[in-house]
Amino acid sequence: MNQLNTRIETDVLGSVEIAAEALFGIHAWRARENFPNTDRFSQHWYQAVGTVKLACYNTIERFQNAVEKKFGKATTIKMMAQEKIEALQEAAREVIQGKHFEGFIVPAVQGGAGTSINMNVNEILANVALGKLGKDPGTYTEIDPIEDANRYQSTNDVIPTALHVACMQRLPALENRINLLRHEIEKLEAAHRNHLRIAYTQMQAAVPSSLGRLFSTYNEALSRDWWRISRGQERLKVVNLGGSAIGSGLASPRFFVMEAIRELQKLTGLPVTRSDNMHDATCNLDPFVEVHGFLTAHAVSLEKMVGDLRLLASDLIDTNDIRLPRKQVGSSIMPGKVNPVIPEFVIGCAHKVYANGTMVNGLAARGLLDLNAYLPIIGHAFLDSLELLIAANRTLQENLFCGLEINAQAAEEKLYRSPSVCTALLPYLGYGKAALLASEMQRSSGSIHEANQTLQLIDPEKLEELLAPSNLLKEGFSVHDLLDEMGERS
Amino acid sequence: MNQLNTRIETDVLGSVEIAAEALFGIHAWRARENFPNTDRFSQHWYQAVGTVKLACYNTIERFQNAVEKKFGKATTIKMMAQEKIEALQEAAREVIQGKHFEGFIVPAVQGGAGTSINMNVNEILANVALGKLGKDPGTYTEIDPIEDANRYQSTNDVIPTALHVACMQRLPALENRINLLRHEIEKLEAAHRNHLRIAYTQMQAAVPSSLGRLFSTYNEALSRDWWRISRGQERLKVVNLGGSAIGSGLASPRFFVMEAIRELQKLTGLPVTRSDNMHDATCNLDPFVEVHGFLTAHAVSLEKMVGDLRLLASDLIDTNDIRLPRKQVGSSIMPGKVNPVIPEFVIGCAHKVYANGTMVNGLAARGLLDLNAYLPIIGHAFLDSLELLIAANRTLQENLFCGLEINAQAAEEKLYRSPSVCTALLPYLGYGKAALLASEMQRSSGSIHEANQTLQLIDPEKLEELLAPSNLLKEGFSVHDLLDEMGERS
Amino acid sequence: MNQLNTRIETDVLGSVEIAAEALFGIHAWRARENFPNTDRFSQHWYQAVGTVKLACYNTIERFQNAVEKKFGKATTIKMMAQEKIEALQEAAREVIQGKHFEGFIVPAVQGGAGTSINMNVNEILANVALGKLGKDPGTYTEIDPIEDANRYQSTNDVIPTALHVACMQRLPALENRINLLRHEIEKLEAAHRNHLRIAYTQMQAAVPSSLGRLFSTYNEALSRDWWRISRGQERLKVVNLGGSAIGSGLASPRFFVMEAIRELQKLTGLPVTRSDNMHDATCNLDPFVEVHGFLTAHAVSLEKMVGDLRLLASDLIDTNDIRLPRKQVGSSIMPGKVNPVIPEFVIGCAHKVYANGTMVNGLAARGLLDLNAYLPIIGHAFLDSLELLIAANRTLQENLFCGLEINAQAAEEKLYRSPSVCTALLPYLGYGKAALLASEMQRSSGSIHEANQTLQLIDPEKLEELLAPSNLLKEGFSVHDLLDEMGERS
Amino acid sequence: MNQLNTRIETDVLGSVEIAAEALFGIHAWRARENFPNTDRFSQHWYQAVGTVKLACYNTIERFQNAVEKKFGKATTIKMMAQEKIEALQEAAREVIQGKHFEGFIVPAVQGGAGTSINMNVNEILANVALGKLGKDPGTYTEIDPIEDANRYQSTNDVIPTALHVACMQRLPALENRINLLRHEIEKLEAAHRNHLRIAYTQMQAAVPSSLGRLFSTYNEALSRDWWRISRGQERLKVVNLGGSAIGSGLASPRFFVMEAIRELQKLTGLPVTRSDNMHDATCNLDPFVEVHGFLTAHAVSLEKMVGDLRLLASDLIDTNDIRLPRKQVGSSIMPGKVNPVIPEFVIGCAHKVYANGTMVNGLAARGLLDLNAYLPIIGHAFLDSLELLIAANRTLQENLFCGLEINAQAAEEKLYRSPSVCTALLPYLGYGKAALLASEMQRSSGSIHEANQTLQLIDPEKLEELLAPSNLLKEGFSVHDLLDEMGERS
Repeated sequence: MNQLNTRIETDVLGSVEIAAEALFGIHAWRARENFPNTDRFSQHWYQAVGTVKLACYNTIERFQNAVEKKFGKATTIKMMAQEKIEALQEAAREVIQGKHFEGFIVPAVQGGAGTSINMNVNEILANVALGKLGKDPGTYTEIDPIEDANRYQSTNDVIPTALHVACMQRLPALENRINLLRHEIEKLEAAHRNHLRIAYTQMQAAVPSSLGRLFSTYNEALSRDWWRISRGQERLKVVNLGGSAIGSGLASPRFFVMEAIRELQKLTGLPVTRSDNMHDATCNLDPFVEVHGFLTAHAVSLEKMVGDLRLLASDLIDTNDIRLPRKQVGSSIMPGKVNPVIPEFVIGCAHKVYANGTMVNGLAARGLLDLNAYLPIIGHAFLDSLELLIAANRTLQENLFCGLEINAQAAEEKLYRSPSVCTALLPYLGYGKAALLASEMQRSSGSIHEANQTLQLIDPEKLEELLAPSNLLKEGFSVHDLLDEMGERS
Repeated sequence: MNQLNTRIETDVLGSVEIAAEALFGIHAWRARENFPNTDRFSQHWYQAVGTVKLACYNTIERFQNAVEKKFGKATTIKMMAQEKIEALQEAAREVIQGKHFEGFIVPAVQGGAGTSINMNVNEILANVALGKLGKDPGTYTEIDPIEDANRYQSTNDVIPTALHVACMQRLPALENRINLLRHEIEKLEAAHRNHLRIAYTQMQAAVPSSLGRLFSTYNEALSRDWWRISRGQERLKVVNLGGSAIGSGLASPRFFVMEAIRELQKLTGLPVTRSDNMHDATCNLDPFVEVHGFLTAHAVSLEKMVGDLRLLASDLIDTNDIRLPRKQVGSSIMPGKVNPVIPEFVIGCAHKVYANGTMVNGLAARGLLDLNAYLPIIGHAFLDSLELLIAANRTLQENLFCGLEINAQAAEEKLYRSPSVCTALLPYLGYGKAALLASEMQRSSGSIHEANQTLQLIDPEKLEELLAPSNLLKEGFSVHDLLDEMGERS
Repeated sequence: MNQLNTRIETDVLGSVEIAAEALFGIHAWRARENFPNTDRFSQHWYQAVGTVKLACYNTIERFQNAVEKKFGKATTIKMMAQEKIEALQEAAREVIQGKHFEGFIVPAVQGGAGTSINMNVNEILANVALGKLGKDPGTYTEIDPIEDANRYQSTNDVIPTALHVACMQRLPALENRINLLRHEIEKLEAAHRNHLRIAYTQMQAAVPSSLGRLFSTYNEALSRDWWRISRGQERLKVVNLGGSAIGSGLASPRFFVMEAIRELQKLTGLPVTRSDNMHDATCNLDPFVEVHGFLTAHAVSLEKMVGDLRLLASDLIDTNDIRLPRKQVGSSIMPGKVNPVIPEFVIGCAHKVYANGTMVNGLAARGLLDLNAYLPIIGHAFLDSLELLIAANRTLQENLFCGLEINAQAAEEKLYRSPSVCTALLPYLGYGKAALLASEMQRSSGSIHEANQTLQLIDPEKLEELLAPSNLLKEGFSVHDLLDEMGERS
Repeated sequence: MNQLNTRIETDVLGSVEIAAEALFGIHAWRARENFPNTDRFSQHWYQAVGTVKLACYNTIERFQNAVEKKFGKATTIKMMAQEKIEALQEAAREVIQGKHFEGFIVPAVQGGAGTSINMNVNEILANVALGKLGKDPGTYTEIDPIEDANRYQSTNDVIPTALHVACMQRLPALENRINLLRHEIEKLEAAHRNHLRIAYTQMQAAVPSSLGRLFSTYNEALSRDWWRISRGQERLKVVNLGGSAIGSGLASPRFFVMEAIRELQKLTGLPVTRSDNMHDATCNLDPFVEVHGFLTAHAVSLEKMVGDLRLLASDLIDTNDIRLPRKQVGSSIMPGKVNPVIPEFVIGCAHKVYANGTMVNGLAARGLLDLNAYLPIIGHAFLDSLELLIAANRTLQENLFCGLEINAQAAEEKLYRSPSVCTALLPYLGYGKAALLASEMQRSSGSIHEANQTLQLIDPEKLEELLAPSNLLKEGFSVHDLLDEMGERS
């Protein structure tokens, strides 16, 4: 290696040679050696670390100003020069924008409770800030990744807080996507409210229902999902910034301990709140278990829904009530074949969410004493689930529900040809006539109208009235109906 | 088989011979043949089916009275004789008390969306009611398991509603157990608030903390768990009773559809609520996914907590801060050996809860169109998790925390002999002195007091003051402290 | 409590009052207090503990005879009187038969690495043996549960060895059930080898295939499953009996250490083998993880298979190729409705097996240093999976495949009406003609024969030949066929 | 967009504009729109697709030569020009080397059973081959991604076969890593065979053992893991190449159907084998479930092992028997703190493997009829687990076991100060003396030697002999030893 193009960095364990212009330093370098994994670290989390750091630098600036104002410059309290603070603030702003991510070389699967994440960002911030001051990367005597970029902070508070921020910033994106999807489904629900279909239980014909009702069940589930996920924000808002090591606030000025979160609120507009028990907020990760449970519930709702659609659009069915939009060619051999790739994608996403949930639960339970060492992987799994669900909702709306074709007539005809339609007439016809009709339908494979024509059981006009959606879809019969039917009512 | 001791029951598929006195009938008998499983069905759920049935019978009684009052006896509406209703009500009351459970022969793992549960209970109710009227079991011409015991009902609404009721009845038992445990832990938290200990992160000594703080983290996690689980009640309160097949209300009078839930509320005192969308409430089981997520979060909190205790009480540690009560002899070979069986039991329970969660999620996602066929296994897993957690909390309180021995002195001594104590003095001593002290402690394996005596760095009285819990445990240093320390403040 | 009807038992922790005739003792009593769980402990495992104990007693008998023969009676080696040995042997034989299980009061979910299981069986054995000698339960001065019933043994070796034995005894039952099921499916495979059907990929019509081929895929998967499970025996045969505490052989005579397993082999006829590394065999439970993986693979095969059948028999399909036997009434409201309860039961079993796998993996990984404390729950989950799969195979054979109705004609007709049939003719007709046929079929919704009649593209006899199963089902076209077709071949 | 820099591609669903130089085409483009996921597709799998494609092209070349030799050029069999074949072969060779991966734009989480993977590679191959012939990307009239690059192939056979190849190529890398790790551990096992330590069960002191024995348990588990994983190769060797759609061999010459796999064997040197039942090999993915079960078992072994090490090296223990090498700075606040990041990384990897297993099982069970649509995600999860385990083994060897420090003296001293040492002397001293010694040790917190000095129970030299590793570590006592001890033997 050309010596001109490298620099040497040193820590208590020794020295390593690093590319001269690299924004990462010795700590990130060691992490990469120790953790030979290639999963990409979440860029959202990376940016959120920048946000938390900026909140810290702003708080330090205010703290120093306050100290200086009260005690003057001549104090032994260690102060950071204003130009350094400003350079670090500027660097943090760039990280917030997603810049310098190429300098982040720590993989998603890693040991340590986030130390390597914090160290790598500290190194990036210090080196970028050094650049602002016209210095070379690695000139840590000017701005040190630990002494300066990490001042008053600890991995124990900065990294989990940044994870909370990243989650709180992405949860609304998911909420938004769910609502866009719901809006699309609501249109179908409204359009097909009275379009009759057979309801199937356990894949067997059961009783009459409508297409709109089926869509309404998707909509309801998604409404609950939205509600849950909107609660997620609330459940994740408690953070431990200022807690330093294990939530103790150790070696940080009380001003910083108390003010850093307020600064973070201001910066993000998020309702982040200081924990009443910073130790608890540091060692217990059950809130991620709880909120990932909401994500799992949503994945379950999606899998159920696309399972329906894939089935209803299947070629195993003679005439489909529903056809999925054709989104990509499905076979090289069978040119016309188009597969239900969007439902399949969503099922794949759902199963990855379940798997992530397994990891979140298993590792959250592995917290020990004053810390949980597995925060990085828990956060990785959590954010992955979020993005998978955002993607699933988006493609469902844009590439499936948008172009769903409904054949309401086919659905109605199938109902009229299914003996299950007779069940709904039981209260009106009595068991005897209903059973006769059903038997005739089964025998002749004909419709209920044809069966009635054969058997002459009811006035055809009356039958039409009984089969009207308004009658078939009402919730329970009223005694008046019955008495009318039976000519008993005066 | 003695013919005198059997009866023949018949359905559309044929006939079977059943012990004459058996309370179950042909449907349960077939289920047992079809599902060769031996997992016990939840008695809580069984009893809740009785509750739901009683609500139905009460509603039928009121309905019939209303019809009769308005239209007189001479109506073709099918009426059930008052004495039959009363016999069924009496039978249902006995089921609610847990009686006749020996007549319930359907195993927990079963096919069908609860049909066999409903059928078996219907058979029990009919046969018990027949007994009240002095008739033999199987005299279904008098009281029919389907026509009478199941009137206006469907498996689709009765069985899920009963599951909701069972869960809502057992969730408070869990809440109560959590609170009893918390109460026990709070006592420890209060008693040891200022008893210093080393905080460990990633099993390495980190910074000073206190025993009370550690207990406080358990308490906080349990508080969140309690809060979650109390929300579970809310999340499960929406039921579909009256929905009949697929939530349609089909073949049930509107009076029944609307009133049955009100009757159920009255009977149970639970805030059960009628779903605005009975179809959704019938086919989507995401609420169980969500609430089981709360149970999982609680299991995670428990596993984390007992993991700590097991470690702190371990023989690998020279002097234990904590000793678990001795609850049973742990070895036949090593007479004095006592093992941490309570933490182990709790970890076993937690892992079974995680496994149950896997089942709940996987099967809830398997709902299809208008029903989820896996409700019985989902309910089984859910109720199992509830009982496991009730048991875990109970034994933790009664057999562990009640008798926990704390050696606060040992904890403090270890802190004073750990170089990690120096970290907390950084803001007061400055890095240089703190590092010197730590090195000396490491060299001599002595306490911080001894090291200071050797090095003569600080006035011993001052050191005592700095090491006081009130100083070590405060959140962040104040600038005044520092300036005092450094003699700068006027 | 009537003092006459109780006895007092004492251990180092104190005394408890126990029903005078109870076969369990103080250790089991304490376990039941400590582990408030109600899951039934596996009777197979219980019986296998009896088997292992008998092997131990037989070995002790031989050991004592050998010592006496060589050194005479006058040795200080602690000997057990022959009549006591015989009483214990007799008691063990009864446990092997499943007797006295009511005296086993330790639940399946428990703390401790099996200590409570061992203690409870020791207590039963001692008390039953005491009965043989005409003594009251609890007269432990005569036969002591630990000193005698557990002589030279440790929970560490007896309980895992018994688990291996129980698994090895039940695995062949599963193998047998799989083979009975395969036999049933093979009949279908043979009968329907040339009965054409549409193959569906991703639920869309793909290319021609046959019903027999579909059954053959089930058969192949089950063959692999059988093979795997037969390997399970091999993978579980290594046991640690004689290892005493942690596999050390501590406090046991070398004769016993070496001979106990040989005795166990003789008793069981199983290829149980002594581990080369008894410490490893004591602390590592990865063999259970591996073999449960085989059970999971089998569950996956079953779920795939019944998913097919449930779909093919669904009412959503106009004319079903396959109808499931009607096994139980499916609805109280819709009298003719019969649901696919056997497939649903199997899917439920499969998901419980997956959940058990989760537990086995998670807890096997929780082994620590010289033991895994979670053996009881791991064994419980493993044996539960075994029984679930035995049940699933049994009911599939007896209640589903036995009575499966195949409508081969319907399957063939659907193929002839599906444009996908044309794909298979591509090599013979060329793309142009094949596409024309397919389009005409789509236009007219007619069969390939009708389309050809309209278009007059091929000689009808030739078409018949091309559509013959022998042609449609062959693997790849031969060049000779093609050249024949095109009249090129001389 | 500059028109000069784009090209238009068209399929049956419409047209899209693509960057002129892009190697992907319309099918990949649509997939990227449909599947908004960012997980990187496995490069190993990508390269393996190249390998399978090359085998196909080689087979086509041989087929064409054979046809031509036999029937001359004048046949209507569709032939590909030799120069096109060669261009495609060259392109495939480059894909095998990992080139053009930037043209692969399909994400890992995707719908479709691999169609998009196949299509994207086909597009890359066609476009690279076109380049070889001096043509622009997109000139598909010359070389068509489907007609030419995919000739005689189907996604159904190429993509699963390539997955098998990728797995078979990476499994040996894992085997190798396991063996390198074992080699490292064996050295420790040998070096510390007779270095005594306390064995702990359930974290409580149990009986004497040695450090070497502990290492031997790791070694044994890894040996089994290696053996399992070497069997994985065998279990995955059966492939369906030549099966075309659903394993039917449809539209492919029999020569190709039979020869393609032989070509693949030759190219890869792997024992890939043609399935006897190509339909089964296409729709059943249970072999991946089985082999992933092996990976899970290995992950369990690793988690158990590093759990031990992390505990033994913990600061909670006064004097550590084991110290982990210091691999990276663990804290910004506590300069000397070094955390067990390698064990933590391994535990993270293990949990991701478990989660992947969940996905593999759940989705393999979701196969339906003639295909499993979830092959892409199953393959992604499987290959991810492989790489995670390769990484875990590598870093364990290089960054942990290589530098493990053992303090054998500390381990021995702890044993001599633990009353548990007395248990091992039971057979030699008798219960009475052993108990006296243990009590004295407990009372005085002294060593067994000191206790004996106080009590004068045994000749110190004799005690030394009894405490020798050769005695403490032997498996079971021999009667001769005992009699010697007791002066009984003549």
